[in-house]
Amino acid sequence: MTRGNARVKEARKLSRRSERSERRLFLADGPKAVEGALGAGCVVEVFATTAATEQYAALAADAPAWTLVDDAALASLSDSVSPAGVVALCRFLDGAVPARARLTAICADVRDPGNAGTVIRCADAAGADAVVLAGHSVDAYNPKTVRASVGSLFHLPIVPEPDAASAVRAAQAAGLQVLAADGAGEVDLDEADELLARPTAWLFGNEAWGLPDELAALADHRVRIPIHGRAESLNLSTAAALCLYASARAQRRASPT
Amino acid sequence: MTRGNARVKEARKLSRRSERSERRLFLADGPKAVEGALGAGCVVEVFATTAATEQYAALAADAPAWTLVDDAALASLSDSVSPAGVVALCRFLDGAVPARARLTAICADVRDPGNAGTVIRCADAAGADAVVLAGHSVDAYNPKTVRASVGSLFHLPIVPEPDAASAVRAAQAAGLQVLAADGAGEVDLDEADELLARPTAWLFGNEAWGLPDELAALADHRVRIPIHGRAESLNLSTAAALCLYASARAQRRASPT
Repeated sequence: MTRGNARVKEARKLSRRSERSERRLFLADGPKAVEGALGAGCVVEVFATTAATEQYAALAADAPAWTLVDDAALASLSDSVSPAGVVALCRFLDGAVPARARLTAICADVRDPGNAGTVIRCADAAGADAVVLAGHSVDAYNPKTVRASVGSLFHLPIVPEPDAASAVRAAQAAGLQVLAADGAGEVDLDEADELLARPTAWLFGNEAWGLPDELAALADHRVRIPIHGRAESLNLSTAAALCLYASARAQRRASPT
Repeated sequence: MTRGNARVKEARKLSRRSERSERRLFLADGPKAVEGALGAGCVVEVFATTAATEQYAALAADAPAWTLVDDAALASLSDSVSPAGVVALCRFLDGAVPARARLTAICADVRDPGNAGTVIRCADAAGADAVVLAGHSVDAYNPKTVRASVGSLFHLPIVPEPDAASAVRAAQAAGLQVLAADGAGEVDLDEADELLARPTAWLFGNEAWGLPDELAALADHRVRIPIHGRAESLNLSTAAALCLYASARAQRRASPT
């Protein structure tokens, strides 16, 4: 199958968010992502080169449909500089925050797709139950987000919520305290183990301008990561990793599983 | 001054590592980096557009030399997509690990310049005393590293050491325990507060292939970040943030400053 094939052309259009939203389909690029998508049961069809088919025979065995394409067709479906040779066409996952969630992340207006993917990966590693992409955030199915999540997109529910304030209120209604990560917060992350042990939704702001005051005010507490040196701040994904892992540690110490 | 000016042309060549190493000069791009460089006293000359000169008048007042250039000349010195209008020509900083260091990071073979800059920023935030760029690491003065460090490059010593094993032995000789960040490590980061309270050099491996076994074996302990969910690993900068902050917290609890 070549670049000009109708199915390949239709799949290629999924690089656009509007096309993804309308058709509720997206592309997962590379063996890790394809493996994750197969595990999540959302794969419609896998496009692969002959070489990748040999290399990833185990994936081919699991796929509902495996379509051979030439190198140019595969490259046209991948936004990677050096495509790995496998791209899965997937259905949207439609995740929801589980009713008994104890740790979640709410990202308000995260705009860089790579950052969103890295936060999803950190949340997965920290054992979080869901990630909410709130406000004007990038969508979870942006090719760069899928790649940066290194498969984690398929491991926990990723929930869109266009209204960030609603996301905060929904978490509180579900019995989670909302902690806003805020450089000027009144609580020091390193001195809050008791607070951190409670069921928590972390609220993270935009990578450039942080959290709007009115959103931070909705949170139950605003928590700052201590800056011991002379850096002004941390970037979004390292801040998210520190906050989520601090909660995971405190929760596990309070009630070991 | 235009793009074709001899001084601008000479400065532009510093985008190449070989040119930087030979002349021991580099470029710091953007107001944060220029401010940091001025604070560190390493600035030879600042190139700026007329607009940026008005906007950053406070920087101009501090600079030993401030040269007006047109937009095209400035853009030719910047690797940013939207240059901020100020670029400083700087001397190498020649940092050394301080004799009484209590927390350092040794990066072995970090290859992505953005990752190196982010690790430097995290190390600064965690209050580390130095970062060693060991083995075949990117150099600290790569334009992307300078930018990703958001000024932190100028806040703590960044030390090159072509032989990673020597960097480990030097840390040990200086009385620091070396903890290797290693997904298969025998110590759990969350259960090591006593260990973490000691003076420590963290050893981090390459972003793709991690630490070679023989290097990890030189460390006093190998420490794993617990993965509570289904992610396979964390990326280099989030792993470095978690390890360095864990040490900072344990050290401060053991002997508050």
